[in-house]
Amino acid sequence: VSDGVEGQERIYLDGNSLGPPTPRVAEALAAWVRDWGEHLIGGWNELGWWDLPVTVGDRIARLVGAAPGQVVAADSVTVNLYRLLEAAVALRRDRRRVVTAADDFPTDRYLVASVAARAGMEVDAVPIGSLADAVGDDTAVVVASHVHYRTGELADMARVNVTAHHRGALVLWDLSHSVGAVDAALDATDTDLAVGCSYKYLNGGPGAPAWTYVAHRLLESMPNPIPGWVGHLEPFAMADRYVPAAGIRRMLSGTPPVAGLAALDAALEAFDGWTPGMLREHSLTLTGRFLDHVDTTLAGVGFELVTPRARERRGSQVSLQHPQAYAVVQACIDAGVVGDYREPGICRFGFAPRLLTVADVDAAAERIAAVMRAGSWRDPRFAERRTVT
Amino acid sequence: VSDGVEGQERIYLDGNSLGPPTPRVAEALAAWVRDWGEHLIGGWNELGWWDLPVTVGDRIARLVGAAPGQVVAADSVTVNLYRLLEAAVALRRDRRRVVTAADDFPTDRYLVASVAARAGMEVDAVPIGSLADAVGDDTAVVVASHVHYRTGELADMARVNVTAHHRGALVLWDLSHSVGAVDAALDATDTDLAVGCSYKYLNGGPGAPAWTYVAHRLLESMPNPIPGWVGHLEPFAMADRYVPAAGIRRMLSGTPPVAGLAALDAALEAFDGWTPGMLREHSLTLTGRFLDHVDTTLAGVGFELVTPRARERRGSQVSLQHPQAYAVVQACIDAGVVGDYREPGICRFGFAPRLLTVADVDAAAERIAAVMRAGSWRDPRFAERRTVT
Repeated sequence: VSDGVEGQERIYLDGNSLGPPTPRVAEALAAWVRDWGEHLIGGWNELGWWDLPVTVGDRIARLVGAAPGQVVAADSVTVNLYRLLEAAVALRRDRRRVVTAADDFPTDRYLVASVAARAGMEVDAVPIGSLADAVGDDTAVVVASHVHYRTGELADMARVNVTAHHRGALVLWDLSHSVGAVDAALDATDTDLAVGCSYKYLNGGPGAPAWTYVAHRLLESMPNPIPGWVGHLEPFAMADRYVPAAGIRRMLSGTPPVAGLAALDAALEAFDGWTPGMLREHSLTLTGRFLDHVDTTLAGVGFELVTPRARERRGSQVSLQHPQAYAVVQACIDAGVVGDYREPGICRFGFAPRLLTVADVDAAAERIAAVMRAGSWRDPRFAERRTVT
Repeated sequence: VSDGVEGQERIYLDGNSLGPPTPRVAEALAAWVRDWGEHLIGGWNELGWWDLPVTVGDRIARLVGAAPGQVVAADSVTVNLYRLLEAAVALRRDRRRVVTAADDFPTDRYLVASVAARAGMEVDAVPIGSLADAVGDDTAVVVASHVHYRTGELADMARVNVTAHHRGALVLWDLSHSVGAVDAALDATDTDLAVGCSYKYLNGGPGAPAWTYVAHRLLESMPNPIPGWVGHLEPFAMADRYVPAAGIRRMLSGTPPVAGLAALDAALEAFDGWTPGMLREHSLTLTGRFLDHVDTTLAGVGFELVTPRARERRGSQVSLQHPQAYAVVQACIDAGVVGDYREPGICRFGFAPRLLTVADVDAAAERIAAVMRAGSWRDPRFAERRTVT
């Protein structure tokens, strides 16, 4: 993951925002266009395009502790989250409250506010560590990120699930900032519903198809609020009445985005032979090493640590607060360490376990320290905001 | 669009189901993966990924008679249609009826039924030629395909729009089976809302991002029922409250599907220099020629014409009924003419104006006639159903 930045290798600590392509992705896309030209409409059958949401879904399932047949890949995270949130609220429509994490990723907040308002429900937004405590007998659904995008804090999935189920509520997790790095055990923790991103740690490419998980035990009664032809029991019967497909296919809506799925399928090959536990262990090694540097190499240069230190409370990123965080991040990028900035005041460094070594972490910390000691972030060109960061 | 089928060139009359790739698509995808690896997260700014839904949308706008700034490309047709239908119903929530085309494409029917039921509205499903007559003072929205997927009948967009507006209703057109072949004049006919497919006549690839059109005059008050971060006025402010973006960006929800958009953008280059009128004229020449063959070359071989003959009432496909239509289509494919089968009993032949010549139409008709005269469709192997057709 590197090319020349002022004669150095670039160290990419932003795989938690957009992972890089593996060589297999280029090959797979080239093959896909050739196949499309040859098979044309026949590709849906002959090349397995029709089943890609399920076959790619099963590859992802393995990385989140889910048995096959519970994950489909298609659409954006926003659409997947909307679909499950509407469904969850419909399944608990006699209840009046939605519990969510405060300052969660904007899409999550906007959807929770919109869906709850429409269902006539109130929203309780609490710190990610207080989700379980906020659940009451009137809670319809708990919806929260597994790892907080800004702070890197990891939720206690098992405890939240147990508490919510005890009160009769459903739980919907957004694994966008954990899948591929943190060992979510969806089946073992009795998770109800989940969604996740594929272009961060999974390296599926910008805007790669996201995914939806629905626990086997819920599938039969799961409504799809966006009922499209692809989720129908018999899509080519062109039947008048919508009858949902058996199993996880019922959560599909429109025609599968094959280009994105082909790229993602190829990207996931990099995870063959890696268990969620192996990914998590290496991720903890990387973040642990960086946290050591925060106390040593980076001590006294002006950062304040935001991410919880405890192993069981941190995801795969380390967030550092700084009064001029935006300029600091730009200066670090200029010095060959790519992190990103998040409002307000956060330098975010992500550690993709399939891409980085401890030596990368050491080199990154040294370069960041050099930027801070030299005060090079004070250069006015680093203060200039770009549209997208 | 051809390769060897028993020593002959294959004639592809299924571009109305899935268009073929142009050489530019392979180049563009290869370049895209290289760029992604080089620019990584910077690609959102530096390579224009963030704006692709709008820039690709403007390329499509030109083909449907829409001024720039009214079309965005992202998500599936199903999701785009759902979004606009929910919005339209919300904008006319004091009314009680939805008018739609009978036997429309399944996704359209399922969404209309679901959204109307939820809004407490009744559905009036009428023949595509009777849409205008069905509009009443209690109609909230008219939603229908511009060209019917099964019969190839073309709706009278201008008349429906005028009638609906006279009664205070909104109109939402699904241009999946017309964009790239029929000259929809969305602005000139005062259309309110539209969606369309990009993998049929536009050749964007299987499951390519679909698109949404919202008339300028409606944009300011247009709600987005799937409010995500990408449609926010300031996506990177990570603001607590959802404030929609100015203009057509407000209809976006999640992160743009860049692989699919890059392929589609390249595919659309084939339409540079082609006006909607030119596409329509050539399409009419092709379908007119095939209709001539139906009366001559294909007379007396067992087909019944389903598509209206009149220029102003037909789209870019010709549908023929036959008691053994499924087997007939398979036998034609075997003889090098690729059409498709649609329930119940329809052989569907699509004529993509950017791909086909009159000579292709003549050759196709001759081959179909030969299949029918020889009765080769009676071969039992042609009766065997595949999952996806």
